[in-house]
Amino acid sequence: MSSGKKTEPTCVPGFRAAGLHAGIKKEKVPDLALIVSDPPARAAGIFTRNRIQSPAVRVSRGRIRGGTCGALLVNSGNANACTGERGLRDANGMCDGTARALRLDPGTVLVCSTGVIGEFLPTARIRKALPSLIRELKPQGLPAAAEAIRTTDRFPKNAWAETTVGGRKTTLFGMAKGAGMICPNMATMLAFFITDLKAPVPALRRLLKEGAAESFNRIHVDGDPSTNDTVLLLANGLADNRSAAVGTREYDAFASVLFPMMRELATKIVQDGEGATKVVELDVRGARTDADARRFAYHLANAVLVKTSFYGEDANWGRLMVALGGAGPRLDPEKIDIFYDRVPLVRNGVSTGTAQYKRATKVMKKEFFTVSIELNLGNGSCSMLTSDLTHDYVTLNAAYRT
Amino acid sequence: MSSGKKTEPTCVPGFRAAGLHAGIKKEKVPDLALIVSDPPARAAGIFTRNRIQSPAVRVSRGRIRGGTCGALLVNSGNANACTGERGLRDANGMCDGTARALRLDPGTVLVCSTGVIGEFLPTARIRKALPSLIRELKPQGLPAAAEAIRTTDRFPKNAWAETTVGGRKTTLFGMAKGAGMICPNMATMLAFFITDLKAPVPALRRLLKEGAAESFNRIHVDGDPSTNDTVLLLANGLADNRSAAVGTREYDAFASVLFPMMRELATKIVQDGEGATKVVELDVRGARTDADARRFAYHLANAVLVKTSFYGEDANWGRLMVALGGAGPRLDPEKIDIFYDRVPLVRNGVSTGTAQYKRATKVMKKEFFTVSIELNLGNGSCSMLTSDLTHDYVTLNAAYRT
Repeated sequence: MSSGKKTEPTCVPGFRAAGLHAGIKKEKVPDLALIVSDPPARAAGIFTRNRIQSPAVRVSRGRIRGGTCGALLVNSGNANACTGERGLRDANGMCDGTARALRLDPGTVLVCSTGVIGEFLPTARIRKALPSLIRELKPQGLPAAAEAIRTTDRFPKNAWAETTVGGRKTTLFGMAKGAGMICPNMATMLAFFITDLKAPVPALRRLLKEGAAESFNRIHVDGDPSTNDTVLLLANGLADNRSAAVGTREYDAFASVLFPMMRELATKIVQDGEGATKVVELDVRGARTDADARRFAYHLANAVLVKTSFYGEDANWGRLMVALGGAGPRLDPEKIDIFYDRVPLVRNGVSTGTAQYKRATKVMKKEFFTVSIELNLGNGSCSMLTSDLTHDYVTLNAAYRT
Repeated sequence: MSSGKKTEPTCVPGFRAAGLHAGIKKEKVPDLALIVSDPPARAAGIFTRNRIQSPAVRVSRGRIRGGTCGALLVNSGNANACTGERGLRDANGMCDGTARALRLDPGTVLVCSTGVIGEFLPTARIRKALPSLIRELKPQGLPAAAEAIRTTDRFPKNAWAETTVGGRKTTLFGMAKGAGMICPNMATMLAFFITDLKAPVPALRRLLKEGAAESFNRIHVDGDPSTNDTVLLLANGLADNRSAAVGTREYDAFASVLFPMMRELATKIVQDGEGATKVVELDVRGARTDADARRFAYHLANAVLVKTSFYGEDANWGRLMVALGGAGPRLDPEKIDIFYDRVPLVRNGVSTGTAQYKRATKVMKKEFFTVSIELNLGNGSCSMLTSDLTHDYVTLNAAYRT
């Protein structure tokens, strides 16, 4: 039990964690993480919408229905996806082995996997590493766990925050991994939010759903949700606040810390988009409906011609027009205004001239800028983060497995 | 009149053409083409489905409703797109100026533009070049015209064929340009089919539509139809065959030459996809419906993770699975079989092992190969051509304008 110890900026009362190299990855880097909550946490999760789902997703989605999580085992280097019946046995085996070793109810152990698709998990190595992993569990271990869930990530993505919920100090640690296959409705993306908040399961589910709508479901690197995407919220109640049920002040107080953290980690994922040098916010406004705006934003975020123009720092707004016109929903070209940050580059569908073009080109030299598209048709809007498409992206993805 | 002359393999009786450098492009390469038919040809056209359309498309779409084309003026280097009212005046001006100079009914002159979006046409230069262009018109001029419609194309795309339609010798010349922004429902793509066939306008329209469904609407380089895509069929009737109305043997005889030529030029466009080193046929079978199959094929053809794996010659079929699962329609992962040419790489959703993986990797070293996906759900099928996504693609598109 760590709940009595002084909280350090990485610790959350009641949680212990560890990460180590189990030999799933060839390189000698951490590839297995364990997070344990004592007492077991209340839990909520959201999972990939890809129609092809890793056994890890299928197993965790099933177990989390019970609303309780005592431990979470995560491996990187192998997605355990497209592995058929054997993959399902392996995922269940990871949960059950962890439950036995920790003397937990197996229904409260979750599993996540990320990495290469189509290869069987080296379960013997995972089994062999489990006792060491359990020995290394400690309250300060969350960053080590975050380290072990990385795949092509260039940097770990963590955040920690303290806040007061109904007069009680509450702590929140978030970790995320993801760099490629990032697109709305998640990504090859794992994100875990760990807190001592006291809240009922329906509130945790609602918090995740609302938070993801403005964070992990608004980022885009390269096109498809993966087979393994998972976002979890684990709350063990040790803060002993008045329970943060939906509609309470406690709910809102916690949301006001959780949601920005979710956005922060989502932004870091785009920043770390494979080969990315820039993060670009695509801000579509004035669509007929929010659904239309979303289709425009999604289509722009996925358009390789647009993403290479960001890389080239070329304010080639013609490509934005082509992608807008190809997105599907009706529009009126002669009503479209486009801004790069505050520089008006297009008014009523035509160029504002070379001086503005030069100013826009300067905006594009920044590592973060916003492209705003005003369709002047209605009140629908949607904002999405995307990255540029670079030589390094191609290098990384042409050679990922070889 | 050239119809009396002996036909050379590039000539079509009654047609004269020319191409020259008018100064639209900075480099000293041809950028203005003119094709004239005497007598005026019957004409049909299909145009981009992008909701943002160049004034050239709007003008030609309107004029071709009359069913007659005496002349076609085409410029490269400037798409005259997103140019508002002035762009529309310029496109009409190009037609009307050509009509005056050639003493044709202005309603029978068509115009196409391709190149950079958002800049006004240098109409003075075009006007100035027109008399020289007319002087250079000759029956052997079709390849010169084809040369002048190129933008980022690495090679010109022409074809010529003779056939017998109802006992009469009939000649067909096809030219196409297009290398980027190629996707189903056309592309930054122009293609002109020029023939002395005698056929009514409804038959020409049907021929174009049927032919495009299996050629220009089945290719994909990078995601959006452009603002300017146009495919035209001009038939001046000098072959004096029994008219090739829909449903006649003459129609079928001509289609049997036209359709393969359309497929040949469409394939060349993918081969010339910006930076492409490979052409890959994506053959989706066993979908519930053809519409489902089309969504799968389209989604795969557009998936950057898939296209970079082709470039990397890595038989990373997991990315195909991710893209299939992200495409939208329902599927059963455990029924999916995947082949690279004839190598079975996936059976019932799982790997067939490392020996087959190595064989598939060898298949990928070819410049042309087929990825077949058998979903085992029904009889829907769709085949699509795509290219790989390469370092050169990024180089070309990051720097296209600068």
